[in-house]
Amino acid sequence: MKNLKVPFSPIRFSNKTLHLLDQRKLPVQETWIPCRNSQAVWKAIRTMVVRGAPAIGIAAGYGLFLGIRSFRGTREGFLKKLREQAAYLDSSRPTARNLAYAVERIVRKVAGSKETQVSKLINVVLQEAKDIHTDDIVLCRNIGKHGAKLFKAGSRILTHCNAGGLATSGYGTALAVFYAMKEKKVPFFVYADETRPLLQGARLTAWELFKSKIPSTLICDNMAASLMRAGKIDGVVVGADRIAMNGDTANKIGTYGVAVLAHVHKIPFYIAAPSTTFDLKAKTGKDIPIEERASHEVSHIQGRQLAPKGMKIYNPSFDVTPAKYIAGIITEAGVLKAPFNRSIKKIRELLGDC
Amino acid sequence: MKNLKVPFSPIRFSNKTLHLLDQRKLPVQETWIPCRNSQAVWKAIRTMVVRGAPAIGIAAGYGLFLGIRSFRGTREGFLKKLREQAAYLDSSRPTARNLAYAVERIVRKVAGSKETQVSKLINVVLQEAKDIHTDDIVLCRNIGKHGAKLFKAGSRILTHCNAGGLATSGYGTALAVFYAMKEKKVPFFVYADETRPLLQGARLTAWELFKSKIPSTLICDNMAASLMRAGKIDGVVVGADRIAMNGDTANKIGTYGVAVLAHVHKIPFYIAAPSTTFDLKAKTGKDIPIEERASHEVSHIQGRQLAPKGMKIYNPSFDVTPAKYIAGIITEAGVLKAPFNRSIKKIRELLGDC
Repeated sequence: MKNLKVPFSPIRFSNKTLHLLDQRKLPVQETWIPCRNSQAVWKAIRTMVVRGAPAIGIAAGYGLFLGIRSFRGTREGFLKKLREQAAYLDSSRPTARNLAYAVERIVRKVAGSKETQVSKLINVVLQEAKDIHTDDIVLCRNIGKHGAKLFKAGSRILTHCNAGGLATSGYGTALAVFYAMKEKKVPFFVYADETRPLLQGARLTAWELFKSKIPSTLICDNMAASLMRAGKIDGVVVGADRIAMNGDTANKIGTYGVAVLAHVHKIPFYIAAPSTTFDLKAKTGKDIPIEERASHEVSHIQGRQLAPKGMKIYNPSFDVTPAKYIAGIITEAGVLKAPFNRSIKKIRELLGDC
Repeated sequence: MKNLKVPFSPIRFSNKTLHLLDQRKLPVQETWIPCRNSQAVWKAIRTMVVRGAPAIGIAAGYGLFLGIRSFRGTREGFLKKLREQAAYLDSSRPTARNLAYAVERIVRKVAGSKETQVSKLINVVLQEAKDIHTDDIVLCRNIGKHGAKLFKAGSRILTHCNAGGLATSGYGTALAVFYAMKEKKVPFFVYADETRPLLQGARLTAWELFKSKIPSTLICDNMAASLMRAGKIDGVVVGADRIAMNGDTANKIGTYGVAVLAHVHKIPFYIAAPSTTFDLKAKTGKDIPIEERASHEVSHIQGRQLAPKGMKIYNPSFDVTPAKYIAGIITEAGVLKAPFNRSIKKIRELLGDC
């Protein structure tokens, strides 16, 4: 039987209610938002109560169930209503890939079922929503299992941003490595970059580490270099937003600098990401567009003005780390090594098109 | 005649009043605090209305004049009162080296004067306070003059923290290079690191650049690496808190990372600092102690909690950049080049013990 343990779950479904941990309030408050219909789920996704592509997908799956669970009528009417609800939930954040994937997967499952009784089709929806949830836990746990083998006891590992349980079903990608090491009772220590401008490291990763009782310390992004020089970092693990077919990896701004500094200090730098992160259309990092975001994310924190009014600000959301700085890419199917062109091709053949 | 122009002066003395720009309110408000007696100056230094070692020294010099300007009595009584006031002002921030230096310099001048008339001795105090102020402008302008020669037209230069006019008489050390280039009408562009945790870059350097109409952009510290990779940085200039005799340089946390990244991207990295920054007692960077500061500087911004309560935080105030990453040290007497052991020794012989 699959081990579905997670250190904490930001998404809980029970008693016909989806409970979402309100990530906007972290780390100061731990508030749960109960969603009893698809409108409430739509609003929670739109207003970023829940964030992170896999977590959004899971929430949308349950949202679809809540949107159709009271339906009474024919199979045809049910399918129509299901597709309407799927499109509705998909509109909450149109650019989130996992969101569209999750609702489409459920619609496909129901459309493919030969069941005619609507009450049983409603159960098919719920079961598929639960399967999407379970699949993510299994995937994250596999990333953790493979990643944990890379570090020996006593390792001090740096991470950047939040590739954690909060963005997924509770186990994370980069943070999955830490949770797996903890389960194996391997002693280790984590340094977390606060990750300016949006402070996902200080707000979310620090919250996860603190809550999970993983020995750890929060630092400002610009402090990692001197820790490396002092010999206090043995490895780096971060997540990925997109990986080109040659291994060049786009991730939260600041990742590239960490990778270069790790290289100079002879510290292995790993990416942890599911195989769905590989972008067939991107041959190299040059094919990955970098989103530039609003200047107030840098000039203000929680509404407080930090920089002079009118000051020009540059705020790229991501950067690209060239493959040459990456010691390995930790996926659910194993750790890929250079040359990445070859190892990425091989894993895609193994898993089928992702 | 000396050119004493500064882009703005954070310290103004006129009509028996010392006007201090309240740096705590920057960049949101430009408020001036008038000080009409030594108590007001003491309080302004203690509460960090004025900050930066040279600026504190200048303020204390005028404070000493305000403390004795109404004295009536004998030369002996005057000298006693002067020493009392000097010790009093020195107690406002006991660790600031320039503060002690400034008040001692005035006391020495008066004690060495043969003048017996107290009204004339009061003038000696004021003149010496003004000379301390003038000397700092001259020194900073000389740093700027030498530094400006290092960059050709169109250069895009990165700086970290605030080695600016606000910390000095208005012309700065690292920022002196920019002010000198602007005066020479050389076109250039500045990127300013925001400099976590205390955001001196976002609050103070950005304010200076914006106010001086120097084309510039503010970035988070972790964005510099990708700008370097994109070929958008032609050079780096930062200040220094202490320089060892082999050229290893302690400066604001994050400087070391910038230096390594500049090195990897083949970008020249310069230190700009007066010769008083060389520490005879420090043979190498290993002899420079690194102050660790309170965790709330990282976990909170303007009173707002960012990280989970109880999270462990590491907050070193400085780091040390090894001499091998430094292309040159810009001083008031010229630009020192490697090997620094030799060039530092030479400049100390030239200037006398500093």
